[in-house]
Amino acid sequence: MTVYLVGAGPGDPELLTLKAARLLAAADVVVHDRLAANVLCLAPPTAERIDVGKTPGASVRQAEINQLLVELGASVPTVVRLKGGDPFVFGRGGEEALALQEAGIDWEVVPGVSAAVAAPALAGIPVTHRCVADSFTVVTGHRAEGQGTNWEALAQAGGTIVVLMGVSERGAIAARLIAGGLAPDTPVAVVERASMCVQRVVTTSLVALGDEPIEAPATIVIGNVAGLHLGKALVAK
Amino acid sequence: MTVYLVGAGPGDPELLTLKAARLLAAADVVVHDRLAANVLCLAPPTAERIDVGKTPGASVRQAEINQLLVELGASVPTVVRLKGGDPFVFGRGGEEALALQEAGIDWEVVPGVSAAVAAPALAGIPVTHRCVADSFTVVTGHRAEGQGTNWEALAQAGGTIVVLMGVSERGAIAARLIAGGLAPDTPVAVVERASMCVQRVVTTSLVALGDEPIEAPATIVIGNVAGLHLGKALVAK
Repeated sequence: MTVYLVGAGPGDPELLTLKAARLLAAADVVVHDRLAANVLCLAPPTAERIDVGKTPGASVRQAEINQLLVELGASVPTVVRLKGGDPFVFGRGGEEALALQEAGIDWEVVPGVSAAVAAPALAGIPVTHRCVADSFTVVTGHRAEGQGTNWEALAQAGGTIVVLMGVSERGAIAARLIAGGLAPDTPVAVVERASMCVQRVVTTSLVALGDEPIEAPATIVIGNVAGLHLGKALVAK
Repeated sequence: MTVYLVGAGPGDPELLTLKAARLLAAADVVVHDRLAANVLCLAPPTAERIDVGKTPGASVRQAEINQLLVELGASVPTVVRLKGGDPFVFGRGGEEALALQEAGIDWEVVPGVSAAVAAPALAGIPVTHRCVADSFTVVTGHRAEGQGTNWEALAQAGGTIVVLMGVSERGAIAARLIAGGLAPDTPVAVVERASMCVQRVVTTSLVALGDEPIEAPATIVIGNVAGLHLGKALVAK
């Protein structure tokens, strides 16, 4: 009996890994988030589907999910815990893995394509680019989770900054990065609903980010790579 | 006619995406790096395979690859440019995309699972973890590419640091991070040949990193997440 912590990728079902597809097809139970619901068709019709879609930062709810996984892992042959993106990138997969391990339940992680890299790519933006950015930082903008972020230091680090779950705090984040030394006209791209047919890309500048109308979920890319204008990919699908 | 810039994932052929597998199966020509050679069996036997395995930083060679892709893209229906990991994470995919775009060749990027996240995960290390790390930075340690990195600022940023291509410079990197304020006993994990059956994980501390015998290719993970000891995954495959 094993609980598989599986990444479902950024949204397009074709960006699932072969291993994730194989495990889904063999699943007895699938425990999934809202974002991963679009690949559930790959699980057998007989497999139980449990939707634990949650609001970020709901730690009480997370404890319940951990407990559910432990209970399932003790009695069900193949449990797939399916998460949007990658389970270990703001997916709280680490907490679930720890809970399973402490309970003596076998578990395995199956990495997925993270929106942190895929969302910029599908908007034609490489997070690294020779002579433009030789590092990138992925950070959550969600207040409850990201309050420890030293935005001013990030502004000094010199690489691309990718903000997940940062739509509501985008104005405050931009202000702290500018206070830390980033130029107000630093290029910014925002990718709404990456990899889906309704994907939309907004290009702006750091100083104007707070005033742009943006709808969550969206990935915010800050840095000169956002100004490369590899526009071809903007319409690719 | 289209040139697809396709990520092959970290090594395990099962970590390829469904889309990458579909495009490989339809490829007329596959232009691949050394790291992506293990999934070539998914291309038709009749597809031409061109190995452009290169040493990092060989910019003259990169210009030749760009030119090759432009020529192929102008005459071959389906060209797959296959790269280890993700094409836009230190893959120089951005340069190839730019060259294709300037030449008026259709191109599309297919994101892959990056070793930057998958290598730590497969060693049981989540790059983010509630109350431990709420951001992570991916940076190249290769001298020619990473010389602009402000390691001291990264030390202040407070998140996990993932170093790719940093084996030869690991001592110097550790020294700069310590100079920037990271504690000498900060946990470090090094994942050699991630996702392959010969994967090996070395756990150490920042101050001792330079003296550890490590073989490239390896992913270096620096930060408290490296001390979580989700040891179960160390043997998972």
